[in-house]
Amino acid sequence: MERPRHQGMTKNTYMRWRLPLVCLLWEVAMIVLFGVFVRFGPEADAHWEEEKREMNLTSDIENDFYFRYPSFQDVHVMIFVGFGFLMTFLKRYGFGAVGFNFLLAAFGIQWALLMQGWFHSFKSGKILVGVENLINADFCVGSVCIAFGAILGKTSPIQLLVMTLFQVTLFAVNEYILLNLLHVKDAGGSMTIHTFGAYFGLTVTRILYRPNLEQSKDKQGSVYHSDLFAMIGTLYLWMYWPSFNSAISEHGDAQHRAAINTYCSLAACVLTTVAFSSMLQKKGKLDMVHIQNATLAGGVAVGTSAEMMLTPYGSLIVGFICGIVSTVGYVYLTPFLESRLHIQDTCGIHNLHAMPGLIGGIVGAITAAAATEDVYGKEGFIKAFDFTGTYQTRTPSVQGGFQAAGIVVSLLMAFAGGALVGAILKLPVWGDAAAENCFEDDIYWEVPEDEESDVYHMHNPDKPASP
Amino acid sequence: MERPRHQGMTKNTYMRWRLPLVCLLWEVAMIVLFGVFVRFGPEADAHWEEEKREMNLTSDIENDFYFRYPSFQDVHVMIFVGFGFLMTFLKRYGFGAVGFNFLLAAFGIQWALLMQGWFHSFKSGKILVGVENLINADFCVGSVCIAFGAILGKTSPIQLLVMTLFQVTLFAVNEYILLNLLHVKDAGGSMTIHTFGAYFGLTVTRILYRPNLEQSKDKQGSVYHSDLFAMIGTLYLWMYWPSFNSAISEHGDAQHRAAINTYCSLAACVLTTVAFSSMLQKKGKLDMVHIQNATLAGGVAVGTSAEMMLTPYGSLIVGFICGIVSTVGYVYLTPFLESRLHIQDTCGIHNLHAMPGLIGGIVGAITAAAATEDVYGKEGFIKAFDFTGTYQTRTPSVQGGFQAAGIVVSLLMAFAGGALVGAILKLPVWGDAAAENCFEDDIYWEVPEDEESDVYHMHNPDKPASP
Amino acid sequence: MERPRHQGMTKNTYMRWRLPLVCLLWEVAMIVLFGVFVRFGPEADAHWEEEKREMNLTSDIENDFYFRYPSFQDVHVMIFVGFGFLMTFLKRYGFGAVGFNFLLAAFGIQWALLMQGWFHSFKSGKILVGVENLINADFCVGSVCIAFGAILGKTSPIQLLVMTLFQVTLFAVNEYILLNLLHVKDAGGSMTIHTFGAYFGLTVTRILYRPNLEQSKDKQGSVYHSDLFAMIGTLYLWMYWPSFNSAISEHGDAQHRAAINTYCSLAACVLTTVAFSSMLQKKGKLDMVHIQNATLAGGVAVGTSAEMMLTPYGSLIVGFICGIVSTVGYVYLTPFLESRLHIQDTCGIHNLHAMPGLIGGIVGAITAAAATEDVYGKEGFIKAFDFTGTYQTRTPSVQGGFQAAGIVVSLLMAFAGGALVGAILKLPVWGDAAAENCFEDDIYWEVPEDEESDVYHMHNPDKPASP
Repeated sequence: MERPRHQGMTKNTYMRWRLPLVCLLWEVAMIVLFGVFVRFGPEADAHWEEEKREMNLTSDIENDFYFRYPSFQDVHVMIFVGFGFLMTFLKRYGFGAVGFNFLLAAFGIQWALLMQGWFHSFKSGKILVGVENLINADFCVGSVCIAFGAILGKTSPIQLLVMTLFQVTLFAVNEYILLNLLHVKDAGGSMTIHTFGAYFGLTVTRILYRPNLEQSKDKQGSVYHSDLFAMIGTLYLWMYWPSFNSAISEHGDAQHRAAINTYCSLAACVLTTVAFSSMLQKKGKLDMVHIQNATLAGGVAVGTSAEMMLTPYGSLIVGFICGIVSTVGYVYLTPFLESRLHIQDTCGIHNLHAMPGLIGGIVGAITAAAATEDVYGKEGFIKAFDFTGTYQTRTPSVQGGFQAAGIVVSLLMAFAGGALVGAILKLPVWGDAAAENCFEDDIYWEVPEDEESDVYHMHNPDKPASP
Repeated sequence: MERPRHQGMTKNTYMRWRLPLVCLLWEVAMIVLFGVFVRFGPEADAHWEEEKREMNLTSDIENDFYFRYPSFQDVHVMIFVGFGFLMTFLKRYGFGAVGFNFLLAAFGIQWALLMQGWFHSFKSGKILVGVENLINADFCVGSVCIAFGAILGKTSPIQLLVMTLFQVTLFAVNEYILLNLLHVKDAGGSMTIHTFGAYFGLTVTRILYRPNLEQSKDKQGSVYHSDLFAMIGTLYLWMYWPSFNSAISEHGDAQHRAAINTYCSLAACVLTTVAFSSMLQKKGKLDMVHIQNATLAGGVAVGTSAEMMLTPYGSLIVGFICGIVSTVGYVYLTPFLESRLHIQDTCGIHNLHAMPGLIGGIVGAITAAAATEDVYGKEGFIKAFDFTGTYQTRTPSVQGGFQAAGIVVSLLMAFAGGALVGAILKLPVWGDAAAENCFEDDIYWEVPEDEESDVYHMHNPDKPASP
Repeated sequence: MERPRHQGMTKNTYMRWRLPLVCLLWEVAMIVLFGVFVRFGPEADAHWEEEKREMNLTSDIENDFYFRYPSFQDVHVMIFVGFGFLMTFLKRYGFGAVGFNFLLAAFGIQWALLMQGWFHSFKSGKILVGVENLINADFCVGSVCIAFGAILGKTSPIQLLVMTLFQVTLFAVNEYILLNLLHVKDAGGSMTIHTFGAYFGLTVTRILYRPNLEQSKDKQGSVYHSDLFAMIGTLYLWMYWPSFNSAISEHGDAQHRAAINTYCSLAACVLTTVAFSSMLQKKGKLDMVHIQNATLAGGVAVGTSAEMMLTPYGSLIVGFICGIVSTVGYVYLTPFLESRLHIQDTCGIHNLHAMPGLIGGIVGAITAAAATEDVYGKEGFIKAFDFTGTYQTRTPSVQGGFQAAGIVVSLLMAFAGGALVGAILKLPVWGDAAAENCFEDDIYWEVPEDEESDVYHMHNPDKPASP
């Protein structure tokens, strides 16, 4: 072992008191805040019978639960299995990928219920929650999972919790500006989730730049089975993305339409990803990194417009383009960002979320600007863009402008927030590992002792353990 | 090969005629009994059009199928993938974990449809089944999967089938006593599924105590990828638990509320599990065993109360406590139970199901006792506890008492039933393996030959390829 | 390395320009065709508000989306994770199994939306799509995934895309003949999906017969963890099959009934599979191949009859028989087909889809022929078989005859179509691998480096382990 170890020697990754303290204190804070603020919304409260009568509903099936619960569960799977397993591609960071994603998401959804609740579901001093709040909390955490992808393998669990705390807060503020102040549509979160989450994460990883990361280069790759585990994540994200983009759309046609558009966009995206993955490799072979990631860009890129009248062929076009952009990004842009801009993006979220997210925002703005009463129907037009009350007189082209403004706001929030949070995470108190120990589970996890030799000895006890 | 093999030599694990005989005879019995007893319930029968008219339903969406089918599928995934993969953590028992769980559950759901049907859906000599029966059958089998966790790796498939036969029967009796005689609420099964299933399994494993189990100690651990497989099970159980606890609640607000409460409890549980996992390990590292199991205790512990007005912060508190109790259990109690009480609990179901199940029963009793018309609304109060007919005059505090009685009954049934079934399983005719062959798939499975040596060479290139 | 390599030398598996060209051109064609033909159906269109008024619907919940979307998502999982992972059992073909299945299914669903749309959803020059079309597209692709199982490991991705193009086309024609011309019921696709798909694939693999396939025999087996990956596929297929068979049934009782029947059939099938797997093996051990595949035959075999009044015990009988037939097929028939008929069936689709599909068609014909107004109720009878309009006077026995005719038509289409497509795929321009390179990912995939060399040593023990 000639390799210089001084950096590793000086890094204290001991979690024993710091991590428990953060977890316990923050969870106690959650309990107190929930105790003060969170109550069941009318559709989850035992007073629902009275509510039903008041709202003149004749059947329990009108409860929002039945409109949204199946989609909620799909989104839930995307956050925990989808993102979690997508990141298990690293050969020795599977525990961290799945486990830390689990931890940050479990904390994040609680904090998101509060933050989003204060902004959107606050009535007479209480946050009233229902299934839509659960979906929105999962969405919010989705943006943290995205940012996690950029810093995967390089941070301590405490850093991840700190990042989650801040990012959820900023997410809620940004979302409030977009949805409430700008009156922007973004049901699948191209802007609020993907653009914001990705540029936030990229800024954080830029600030946490590690010049000696090539010391752990051998651990940045995958092994055969870790690539298969990652495909579990990929496929669940891909399959359930129609639920993601339709989960909080208006009841009826909007949810229906959002699912169809997303289904189409994702299908097209697979074809162009495969095409470019093969084309850009000298031997023409397919690269698992592209199949695992770029195939999903089509879902990101219709996040804003899926519930609009994008039409199936419009969706195919968006998916077509994004498969190309994302794959090309993996081949050319990621190395460039790392070498020139010092942005070390472990999972390539720039290709999967940042660029497709931007495209999604732009497609949304264009689709909104192009809306006509002819295409949507008189009532449908108003319903689709919620052109009521204050917004009664807003025209599609103005809406398109506001949509575009939403992209800019999301970007600014991401850069500013990422810079702030990156600076905080750079403080030398959070227990992150030395460069040479990055992408390695056994810094923070009990890892089962030397696997291969065990299995060997077990079934071949007559063979010598060492020659 | 110096190791004494005499015990293994005398054990006959040959399954060729015994296992097929049991499977075929029992399945024939199922067919006969289904033929005599089981028919479609009114909502699954082709006469539904007439039924609809009689019940004055205007739409097919009022069919119970649409209220419960998505939850049913989630529960189904929990039983087969959730429990099945959770138990794949053992390095060489993945086939047995997933495969035997598959076998016993597939038999168990059929027998449960009959047993529960006779008690709950019996009309004019026929059992009328619908989607709710399917969910209940899955629930019943869930308690067998739990018990399986205690004896994992130590029993033959025939023993598992025999245990399933008896446990399902006892489950149905216990459930009947609780739900019908005591009029207890337990929609998510803290008592009927978890407390009963866990203490039943612990009693069985106590009776099947194997003094020489340390002979297979090297196989009781995990390897890197088996821990990732187990995380698939964990996450599906965790994500779908809101569906589990809400699946058979009343339509409308009760289902909605149960999902929210469970979501909250589980989220809190993750944080305290992580905290204590790190805190109780000298080096402060996280232990996959805790993350895989203790994170789920929060779902178990709101099984009774989730559909009540537990409130989100109440759920957080329950989850908070159970993450701690369960993790501490893994660290201190499991070794104690094994060394002092001779309870060899392979998966630690005492920590994941037994203690949290008891807590769940108690929380349910308290929540019921604390119910008021103010909190539930006049109608909601009656609906939530079904205080109609004979139970019209029951008060919350009396209900709380009956809930507590339900815990005691479940415990007694579990101990008595487990003792009986354990004694039966101890008979030397079922083909279980010798202690030294426990936790090893190749006793009962064709295991692919040449993997280990390959894996060996791969990581030890300096060792000779052939001896 | 003395082994003759000449065949491998002459085969050009270079995909760099061919594969991208096919993917891009075909996707452009999809966009053009979607642009010309595909529009949102009334329930997904923003004009839905007007539609609702016209159809006198009082609630958004009446949108077909809420009747079918949860089932759609389950079917989607079956196609991409179910089939994809089921085929990962091969030790070195996991990327190809999951990845090529992903590719062909993503292309296939687009083409199926068009083909099926022209036949079934074509109104005033446009194909109007909704959630039912998405399910049907997935179904259609399911038949391609089945055929893929026969040729797994032996074809290039271009061949798979070509096969998908033709098979989807033929599927749509066959489906049109059955459902529209013969007025046959086949909601779960025993005939249209399984019988057609399987015999199509078997014919293709017969024509692509590779006499020297034993050169890659060592790669045709599984390894321990690849068998566990395959179980993920198995279980998702098994668990979600009730959704598959009920997804496009009539609203209400038919969907409900189809789910129950399928649940029962599958449960019984597991028991007989286990019984015969153990019985047919000399040492009485269970074979993962059977557990992974034959347990699913029960779902295939009630594909036609599940929505009929098959009754739960009828379903148990069907599942009972199919578990036996399928397992026996794996043990005796597959080797026979390979050695005598030169049908090399990698996944044994003859046992899992072909025979159970035929049984399913026959069971459907019998169940239909046995239908009476007494069993179904007057209205239910007409609704179940759609005996309206032209078919008002059709009797059950005549319906049974047409059902049987549907089997024959599906078989003829499969043989003729398979022969045609097999001949096309035999052209030496598609870049398939030499026999010695079959079942090996690194022909078409970038496989992670340092494991590969290990694997290399594993299969080439004559090479020095260290240079």
